[in-house]
Amino acid sequence: MKNIIQPIVVTMGDPSGIGIEVTLRAWKNRKIKHPFFLIHDYSYVKKIIKKMKINIPLKLISEPNQAVKIYKNFLPIYQLEVAKNTQLGKPNKQNAKVILKSIDMALNFIQLGEAAAMVTNPIAKNIINYASKNFTGHTEYLAKKSKSKNFCMMLINDTIRVIPLTIHIPLKKVSQSISKKLIKDTLKIINQSIKKDFRNKKPKILITGLNPHAGENGFLGKEEKDTIKPAINSLKKSMNVYGPISADSAFTKENLNKYDAVLCMYHDQALIPVKTIDFYNTVNYTAGLNFVRTSPDHGTGFDIATKFIANENSLVSAIRDAIKISKNRSINK
Amino acid sequence: MKNIIQPIVVTMGDPSGIGIEVTLRAWKNRKIKHPFFLIHDYSYVKKIIKKMKINIPLKLISEPNQAVKIYKNFLPIYQLEVAKNTQLGKPNKQNAKVILKSIDMALNFIQLGEAAAMVTNPIAKNIINYASKNFTGHTEYLAKKSKSKNFCMMLINDTIRVIPLTIHIPLKKVSQSISKKLIKDTLKIINQSIKKDFRNKKPKILITGLNPHAGENGFLGKEEKDTIKPAINSLKKSMNVYGPISADSAFTKENLNKYDAVLCMYHDQALIPVKTIDFYNTVNYTAGLNFVRTSPDHGTGFDIATKFIANENSLVSAIRDAIKISKNRSINK
Repeated sequence: MKNIIQPIVVTMGDPSGIGIEVTLRAWKNRKIKHPFFLIHDYSYVKKIIKKMKINIPLKLISEPNQAVKIYKNFLPIYQLEVAKNTQLGKPNKQNAKVILKSIDMALNFIQLGEAAAMVTNPIAKNIINYASKNFTGHTEYLAKKSKSKNFCMMLINDTIRVIPLTIHIPLKKVSQSISKKLIKDTLKIINQSIKKDFRNKKPKILITGLNPHAGENGFLGKEEKDTIKPAINSLKKSMNVYGPISADSAFTKENLNKYDAVLCMYHDQALIPVKTIDFYNTVNYTAGLNFVRTSPDHGTGFDIATKFIANENSLVSAIRDAIKISKNRSINK
Repeated sequence: MKNIIQPIVVTMGDPSGIGIEVTLRAWKNRKIKHPFFLIHDYSYVKKIIKKMKINIPLKLISEPNQAVKIYKNFLPIYQLEVAKNTQLGKPNKQNAKVILKSIDMALNFIQLGEAAAMVTNPIAKNIINYASKNFTGHTEYLAKKSKSKNFCMMLINDTIRVIPLTIHIPLKKVSQSISKKLIKDTLKIINQSIKKDFRNKKPKILITGLNPHAGENGFLGKEEKDTIKPAINSLKKSMNVYGPISADSAFTKENLNKYDAVLCMYHDQALIPVKTIDFYNTVNYTAGLNFVRTSPDHGTGFDIATKFIANENSLVSAIRDAIKISKNRSINK
């Protein structure tokens, strides 16, 4: 396995949320050996450290590779100023642009070969919309920015990998948003990603139905018969795909042992089981991009941001997975 | 706690499914002290026993109370003939009427005071439809038969109680099927049931949103703002109701400890977490009826019916819960 020497870049996320807190804790607990740096506002982060009553030495860096040398003794910060009146727990639309800019900067570092992968801290979509209309999430934004047409959101933990076919859309629009093409394209991305990113040569992928009991032979919905099943069948020669199975029977221990990934039809169908199985260690990975991006699988936590009770495990897992996937990808280079 | 002396009646379910097998195992493993009897075809059950290569003595009864005396030494059978050509694993539409009749008989025994509660074996809706058009499930059928307007499906295991607001409808019809009235009525049934059936004086009920992230302030759907939140708020004075919360954050250990029940908006949103948490011991309880009905939370298992590998735990739990709820209800009588 080839060693990657570039650091991981961690984005700001919403500065009023728990992003800073979990990043500080992730550095502090020393569970991550590979260097990472945070794009953020040095003075603001200092202020938070004071409030948290912990001791974390920061150091400003002017380019990513400086992070590698100082990481052991300092949390490296790449400066990006937030609004003067920024407060924890109170999302501030004046920060919309700068939050988005930190994502753009991270992407730029990766494209220049200066960072190995990016880990994004949580943001609030309704805040980002002040800077970028129709912003629906990191996944969709980064895909567009990097001109990737084939991508999907993959939730991963030690037990399971789950992919929602549709993501941030109202539930009533789910049925009209699924198509044979989308299912086939997504299955191809998943299959490729499991091979390349997780070094598994023969991925087995399980697919859930859309309706209760996977439609029960068309009796509780037609999408399984008309769309999902034909899409799966058309791929059976080229990959190991199984289903559609009733979503409430998909997540048994037997299935979790047997399959390498589960493709679900929509957000909650995928996110409920993965979070029920392991709430604090689940990571959001964007499969199919030509760079590696992960994120913790929780929100901004505005409601607990001033309490300093956030759990950093998901961010730690996200950084670790970003490192692991980057290394896996570099093997064949 | 008053003792109930009437036996539990177990319905036939689809005779081509695993219903017989799990009922036989439930009697055989001696985990249920309270007597129960099965409505089924004596000769057909005999044949299955032979195929399973186990020894279970059967005895025909002509009225439910006979079950009490013989239960210890025999599995009591109340005769109801199935089609001559019935086979395991091959659902047979000729049995549609008799399957339905076993449910009607069970209800009749309860209404006559001859049985304490009913436990229903799994059926296939598309088969039952040959005898009863628009049959969508036991829950709905029994509510109609017993003229109960206020009822809901409640999934229970040792960790959690979950209620789907809408049940056996296609996913694309969910949004149009939820209303303030339905939410309020269902919350009242849940609140009442937890008090009466589970002896908890101050139930705390958590409610999930319909859309991803519970609509994210209207950004990913309006139902939370327009329907769910107002319904919850209107009940806050009379009961302990909380939400709507993003469904993928509802099932943390903290929440499972804190709340006595979770009301979800649709089938998979409720069934996925409860089955992911405990696949083999989850019970389907119909709350709000004037009699007690439970069932195992699995399907007919046609695909494994000839293999005799079915797990009887859910049926055992269903019979036990039926007994427990009957006893709880009888305390105040």
